[in-house]
Amino acid sequence: MDVKAYMQQVGVQARAASAAIAKADSGLKNKALQAIATAIENSREVLIAANQNDMRRGQENGLDAALLDRLELTPARIDAMLEGLHQVTALPDPVGGMTDLDYRPSGIQVGKMRVPLGVIGIIYESRPNVTIEAASLCLKSGNAAILRGGSEAIESNQALAVCIREGLEVAGLSEFTVQVIETTDRAAVGELITMSEYVDVVVPRGGKGLIERISKDAKVTVIKHLDGICHVYIDDDADMSKAVNIAINAKTHRNGTCNTMETLLVAESVAQKALPQLATAYAEFKVELRGCEKTKAILASVIEATEEDWGTEYLGPVLSIKVVADMAEAIKHINKYGSHHTDSIISENYTKAREFLRQVDSSSVMVNASTRFADGFEYGLGAEIGISTDKIHARGPVGLDGLTSQKWIVLGDGHIRH
Amino acid sequence: MDVKAYMQQVGVQARAASAAIAKADSGLKNKALQAIATAIENSREVLIAANQNDMRRGQENGLDAALLDRLELTPARIDAMLEGLHQVTALPDPVGGMTDLDYRPSGIQVGKMRVPLGVIGIIYESRPNVTIEAASLCLKSGNAAILRGGSEAIESNQALAVCIREGLEVAGLSEFTVQVIETTDRAAVGELITMSEYVDVVVPRGGKGLIERISKDAKVTVIKHLDGICHVYIDDDADMSKAVNIAINAKTHRNGTCNTMETLLVAESVAQKALPQLATAYAEFKVELRGCEKTKAILASVIEATEEDWGTEYLGPVLSIKVVADMAEAIKHINKYGSHHTDSIISENYTKAREFLRQVDSSSVMVNASTRFADGFEYGLGAEIGISTDKIHARGPVGLDGLTSQKWIVLGDGHIRH
Repeated sequence: MDVKAYMQQVGVQARAASAAIAKADSGLKNKALQAIATAIENSREVLIAANQNDMRRGQENGLDAALLDRLELTPARIDAMLEGLHQVTALPDPVGGMTDLDYRPSGIQVGKMRVPLGVIGIIYESRPNVTIEAASLCLKSGNAAILRGGSEAIESNQALAVCIREGLEVAGLSEFTVQVIETTDRAAVGELITMSEYVDVVVPRGGKGLIERISKDAKVTVIKHLDGICHVYIDDDADMSKAVNIAINAKTHRNGTCNTMETLLVAESVAQKALPQLATAYAEFKVELRGCEKTKAILASVIEATEEDWGTEYLGPVLSIKVVADMAEAIKHINKYGSHHTDSIISENYTKAREFLRQVDSSSVMVNASTRFADGFEYGLGAEIGISTDKIHARGPVGLDGLTSQKWIVLGDGHIRH
Repeated sequence: MDVKAYMQQVGVQARAASAAIAKADSGLKNKALQAIATAIENSREVLIAANQNDMRRGQENGLDAALLDRLELTPARIDAMLEGLHQVTALPDPVGGMTDLDYRPSGIQVGKMRVPLGVIGIIYESRPNVTIEAASLCLKSGNAAILRGGSEAIESNQALAVCIREGLEVAGLSEFTVQVIETTDRAAVGELITMSEYVDVVVPRGGKGLIERISKDAKVTVIKHLDGICHVYIDDDADMSKAVNIAINAKTHRNGTCNTMETLLVAESVAQKALPQLATAYAEFKVELRGCEKTKAILASVIEATEEDWGTEYLGPVLSIKVVADMAEAIKHINKYGSHHTDSIISENYTKAREFLRQVDSSSVMVNASTRFADGFEYGLGAEIGISTDKIHARGPVGLDGLTSQKWIVLGDGHIRH
């Protein structure tokens, strides 16, 4: 297969389909989403059989257990896919919404209309359910999609692609509205991220290595999320019971998610009071603690944190702890070592809460709440395609709105400029 | 001079200054803007002398008359700079504004806060007044700026840089908040657009060649405006007097601006009525007409338009005219040949107006209004740093808001995730 020619054709087809899906009304898009759900419901056996082939090949190729777990399609995971499709169907359609239509002194009325971005490329790893999640979000937001899953999931993804095409056909939409790349050749990714004529945005979902590689080589705008080095800062004026609850929740509610706290900062004036009770609680959850010198002076048993610890996303039951002089030092530490993802202050002090919100340069900044709340569902977006740690276009959880843009509209009545 | 080392230093200084300007309050920023105005007022003679050196060197180097005109600093142009500074001072401060603070079922309150982008690089050509315009917009939006003007204006720009530094000092802000690059070495531009560690966005302002070059090589996000191939479509259901007024205004109000109409599309059913009166009016303004076959059948004297004409931004008194079967053909033509800048339909038909607004994929879409309205001042932005024909981040006229982004804020009261 000539990968370059194949991808160019995929691109041309996507661009053509994007014009039609951009003007499709909500009813039509919802009909397609529901028809995809029906097709999946009717293809459970086929999907599981295809997935079994992927699983068998994966085992033969020696994929590790965690990867095989992510790859597996169980009946419950198919249920979750269907539930996701119903949820996206129920979300309000962002496309075409007009806002801020104000009259100007010249007499024209000026406002904005929300419009799709065009063609969105999504690059992900082993989980086949991302195929349906990404397809549904792009479809609902009026974009054409080019999906490229992990090579280990190729048969599962192609079986899902059949269901997607079936649903599109039922709604009378072009089969090229959502295309799932058929080759596992890595060169396809290189094409996808550089054919800016046909692709408007690329969203890589996966490990840091994948995302760094894509960002480096992309000629297309990338909505990316590198890492989640999130902080909780326990201020001098913290309510200690809130502080302990949040510090425990932010670290232990789930390991391995990007909004999990990796570094705890504690104001010196309350460290003596806070750290021992936290250490007891973390011990229950088997969290390994690594601390600065001042932390070690209070908790003798903790491992000494190195410079590297402050910039590490552990994605596991490890926490670094630093005692800081005051909020200013905490903010400086967060802006220096953090990943601009999510950071929270625990404080009852009004002025400090306001300053922390303003000065921390992260996509989500919180007061008295667990970093674990940084999530599209929790924020009311209904679903998310990813969490952006960039500043341009979309920041933080990216939902349907993040897959759209706003154009200006001007309504006149024969107005000319003088 | 080691340009790379120099630019790295400029970048480090800008990044450091950006943290301070991001948290500066409106009063402080306005004080700096006013102090810059005072410094310019007190330096009129110095500025004009520096500009005279640039003008003399430009003449010796054989710059053409149009370029020398753009380069010249006259007392009236200095007045306009001062007026611009006062206007930006009067604009509302976008930074820190919080919106949409809604409570979620979990009990947390989620909203957004507008924040600066960080460090903005602006690359422009001969007009020295852009130095003050760009500096004031970046400053007001809480961003640090690195400005790189045309080499022909180096002395004027360095004299203005002295005034800017004076104003920043009066307000107690870092002199590195706005840096005007001191070297005319072209390698400085190459550094500026690739040092993504220190620069968040680049805005090139100038000819298409400059912008294409920069977009091609940039590693930093570019807010760019390539060309303005704007259309007016006179629909079957147009009010003919509005149509004629707008078609004349859109072409002749000013040549050479990006929101000037370059192609007129006329529905076949009204072409016989519209074209002769338009031709008479255009003749008065000495506009050269180039038409499709059907246009030539009505206006025998027009030059035949070639395929190239439909994709050309004339920036002068030339207009291409195409007779189309209906609105669908007009929209297809616009989306194919246009530059996604500004396009207007003239029609009294409600349904067609709605369809045109939705389906034309341009940064400004208008009904019964002249394309010349596509402008930051006319839209109420107060000022604009440029007009973006991209879809990502900012579309159309880019004002203070376009130089900012929104982060999420979460207000809780000890909330943890269950």
